[in-house]
Amino acid sequence: MTYCVGMLLQEGLLFASDSRTNAGVDHISTFRKMHIFQDGHDRRVVIVSAGNLATTQSVISQLQKDIRQEHEEHILSLPSLYDIVSRVGKTVREVITRDSGQQAEGLAVDFSCNLIVGGQVRGEPPRLFNVYAQGNFIEATADTPYFQIGEIKYGKPILDRIIRAGTPLAQAVKCTLVSFDSTIKSNISVGLPIDLLVHRSGDFGPHEPYRFGGEHPYLRELRNAWSAGLHQLFDSLPDIDIEAP
Amino acid sequence: MTYCVGMLLQEGLLFASDSRTNAGVDHISTFRKMHIFQDGHDRRVVIVSAGNLATTQSVISQLQKDIRQEHEEHILSLPSLYDIVSRVGKTVREVITRDSGQQAEGLAVDFSCNLIVGGQVRGEPPRLFNVYAQGNFIEATADTPYFQIGEIKYGKPILDRIIRAGTPLAQAVKCTLVSFDSTIKSNISVGLPIDLLVHRSGDFGPHEPYRFGGEHPYLRELRNAWSAGLHQLFDSLPDIDIEAP
Repeated sequence: MTYCVGMLLQEGLLFASDSRTNAGVDHISTFRKMHIFQDGHDRRVVIVSAGNLATTQSVISQLQKDIRQEHEEHILSLPSLYDIVSRVGKTVREVITRDSGQQAEGLAVDFSCNLIVGGQVRGEPPRLFNVYAQGNFIEATADTPYFQIGEIKYGKPILDRIIRAGTPLAQAVKCTLVSFDSTIKSNISVGLPIDLLVHRSGDFGPHEPYRFGGEHPYLRELRNAWSAGLHQLFDSLPDIDIEAP
Repeated sequence: MTYCVGMLLQEGLLFASDSRTNAGVDHISTFRKMHIFQDGHDRRVVIVSAGNLATTQSVISQLQKDIRQEHEEHILSLPSLYDIVSRVGKTVREVITRDSGQQAEGLAVDFSCNLIVGGQVRGEPPRLFNVYAQGNFIEATADTPYFQIGEIKYGKPILDRIIRAGTPLAQAVKCTLVSFDSTIKSNISVGLPIDLLVHRSGDFGPHEPYRFGGEHPYLRELRNAWSAGLHQLFDSLPDIDIEAP
């Protein structure tokens, strides 16, 4: 499984992804699930992915090939983020149709995937989309400023409580790492390291994702402080007389 | 959906269940998902249920009918909790086989259910089981002192952090209510009131579940304290310099 988050905040965008991939419990590996397309001056597009790894890798490979072969429509040439996301959705449909069409009947494999695609093209504000396996997509708004894909439930309560459109990026990073910590503690199919990328609105300079491994000093400090703080908070909650509640 | 928890602690057992049932988003109702079988002096058995409501109601009705009709094997006559849980599992199998066998082909309905069954029969320690739709079951031990069924993921992180076999019952009640609060905040298919029952080891006196509605003073105080405390704790966590993490 996988856990990825994308946020659309007033200051910009945030993307985070874990890096564990498993097929059953035997085949566990580390794969980067965050992919960046940028030209260093006018656009930055980020894709994080969950679902069938063969599908998502093929989608990314195809999108990269379109750029190399200077296809008439590619991520670095299309005029708006809406056009880019439409192109990504079309590629998802093509890959799933191709792979599922070649299967022997009765082989029940789930080829689906789920992507968060966001970024900014100069002249537009930052935008964030959730692309489904069907290739269609929804866009984040100020009312619902974040998307999650993969193992979303463990880490959702803290996002629900903290994240609003106006949350500063630095606070959103902190909250995202706490959300990943809760997920990783409760589900072995989600694992470190965490790839994280922050896009400040209007900043198009080249930028790579930052990787938080288990030994990262800030992540360690944050996890310890959160764990100790939760125990303290729990202890400080009013007690109940269970004989007469 | 549903959210239920059962715990096997050194002091005794704890059961909790929400009371929202939905089929799609139109048919939402309140149903008690906790059922007690007790004779007031020598045994107490509690069942909480998730899954197809027709299945779980039929299972409970059948178990109650066995008692009324003085079937040779019923919950109030069987000599051990293991025998009782075997009987419950058999009843689950019978109901699902009966209901699914009568369906027109192509009607894809999920008849499955998932039960937590626990209690104590005088002469034995308290025991706790998770019964699957197949009628087989697993038993809780000190290493894994709780079971969850239904919408389990939102409320799992806090249980993972707090609950151990030695946790006092009053603390376990507090933790269970926090776990339900997180689930109810993030998922509309789980709703108040919460039914909760504590079985102190060796206490066989008649005992009914306690109901926590939205206006319950302790539950309100706990939810407010938890929400305010989480915000405070989050604010107190070390901040990150996102330009140089």
